[in-house]
Amino acid sequence: MAALLDTERARVNAALAAVAEEAVEDAPAALGDPMRYALATPGKRIRPVLCVSAWRAFRPGAAPDAVYRLAAAVEIVHTYSLVHDDLPCMDDDPLRRGRPTVHTVYGAAQAMLTGAALIPAAVRVLDHAAASLRLEAATRGALVVELCRAGGAEGMVGGQLLDLEGEGRPLGADRLERIHRLKTGALLASALRLGALAAGARGAALDAVSRYGRHLGLAFQIVDDVLDVVGDDASLGKTAGKDESAGKTTYPALFGLDGAQALASSEISAALAALRDGGVRSDELEALARYVLERTH
Amino acid sequence: MAALLDTERARVNAALAAVAEEAVEDAPAALGDPMRYALATPGKRIRPVLCVSAWRAFRPGAAPDAVYRLAAAVEIVHTYSLVHDDLPCMDDDPLRRGRPTVHTVYGAAQAMLTGAALIPAAVRVLDHAAASLRLEAATRGALVVELCRAGGAEGMVGGQLLDLEGEGRPLGADRLERIHRLKTGALLASALRLGALAAGARGAALDAVSRYGRHLGLAFQIVDDVLDVVGDDASLGKTAGKDESAGKTTYPALFGLDGAQALASSEISAALAALRDGGVRSDELEALARYVLERTH
Repeated sequence: MAALLDTERARVNAALAAVAEEAVEDAPAALGDPMRYALATPGKRIRPVLCVSAWRAFRPGAAPDAVYRLAAAVEIVHTYSLVHDDLPCMDDDPLRRGRPTVHTVYGAAQAMLTGAALIPAAVRVLDHAAASLRLEAATRGALVVELCRAGGAEGMVGGQLLDLEGEGRPLGADRLERIHRLKTGALLASALRLGALAAGARGAALDAVSRYGRHLGLAFQIVDDVLDVVGDDASLGKTAGKDESAGKTTYPALFGLDGAQALASSEISAALAALRDGGVRSDELEALARYVLERTH
Repeated sequence: MAALLDTERARVNAALAAVAEEAVEDAPAALGDPMRYALATPGKRIRPVLCVSAWRAFRPGAAPDAVYRLAAAVEIVHTYSLVHDDLPCMDDDPLRRGRPTVHTVYGAAQAMLTGAALIPAAVRVLDHAAASLRLEAATRGALVVELCRAGGAEGMVGGQLLDLEGEGRPLGADRLERIHRLKTGALLASALRLGALAAGARGAALDAVSRYGRHLGLAFQIVDDVLDVVGDDASLGKTAGKDESAGKTTYPALFGLDGAQALASSEISAALAALRDGGVRSDELEALARYVLERTH
């Protein structure tokens, strides 16, 4: 799995660099520079890797470059959310993965505009990649609507707002789950759906991938909470223990470390069952589910 | 013209209210409320009115509701830019059109998220309206790409960043024109192109509408600069004299009031000539061009 992840990340990073140039091509340099800087933030690339693996679940073999560019569109949306999350009016983080955040280098107003500019850029990259794959125009439209839904008010941004609202006060398990389903789960599940849709999956198979994605997304977030408690700064690439000092309710706080780990494990079982029940066979998606559970950073 | 504008604005406002409900339907209330509040900001609605008029230039007669919803998508993008422009890290404006700004009511982080959530919402509203009009899937894709280009790094956001960069230092006429072509002109011209594209315009006719839009957009901004000097707060619905106190270079500062007015007038002549040369006959677009020149608020 580690070898596959390394290879896939390298291809995702190459695609991301290529679409970053495409996205800033006609932008003034003062905006193109921070956009390029934001898109070069190192990351696990878990969303685009899932997107490509979902494609391959229906189209076995090497995926064409355009699939990686399509997957990169999801990472652009993720990146914009990080740029905004780090701003002084949000988490006020000077560093991300050991690297000065966009507003630290370019200023808060510039970082806000940079984040906002990444949203339409992601839509265009997605549509362009879909055109390169010669997908039917109707499918291309469906992909754009899917990404906008996941990255919008009823998905990621809705989750960010609920998260903000919940800081500094105790939350119940239902509320915590809702926040994470929206904030992290929606885009992660969408990455999988986009790959599957582009590969031609429909009906029960597409539903199975969606359910897999929702369970995987929640497990991913629970593990993130656990790592925030047990991890160290160096391997996490961010400050450990941040959740507690920010007064955030977390899974370990609600269920204890073992309880949280057990919950993550049961979500992963549900994710794998969803694939099985939908008749989707993919060694890669199964391995990725185990990776999400066992990752240490 | 005043009567047409009033009627059209009423229909645009009704469409905007309808699509606002559609956009916040599945959003958490904590995000849906500020989104709805932002979209209810009063405004001239010049962009959507232009969009519908461009449609009617090719499809005379009453436009269906879906055309107004399509036009409302452009106003959603414009609205997001206002929400972000008003933020403390940008212009720090407590009021817009006499009404507390989004961040004044809901907080800065919430307003930033609200603005960001409006971008994918606009894309979905546009795609949905295009589907209601039974446009071909390829045209629907072209509309989405058009709006994202105009509202993105090589359009509006690029212009906002150049504007920010230029504050407090003297700019030449070329630089000022570039800022305005991007910041205001791109979305205004795009509103026209979207209406024309949806109505089936292609080739020389579409180019003519684009050129009309670019000249109109620049004239609109020059008149804005003039009104900032000669207007009063009450009729403008904002603080007059703001440009000078913000240290912004303006057309009147560069060319004097008469010089700026003459420039606006020549842009309007060029806009009308573009329509004529492209064989586009539209009393409405001609009247709107004169309105842009003669408006007092």
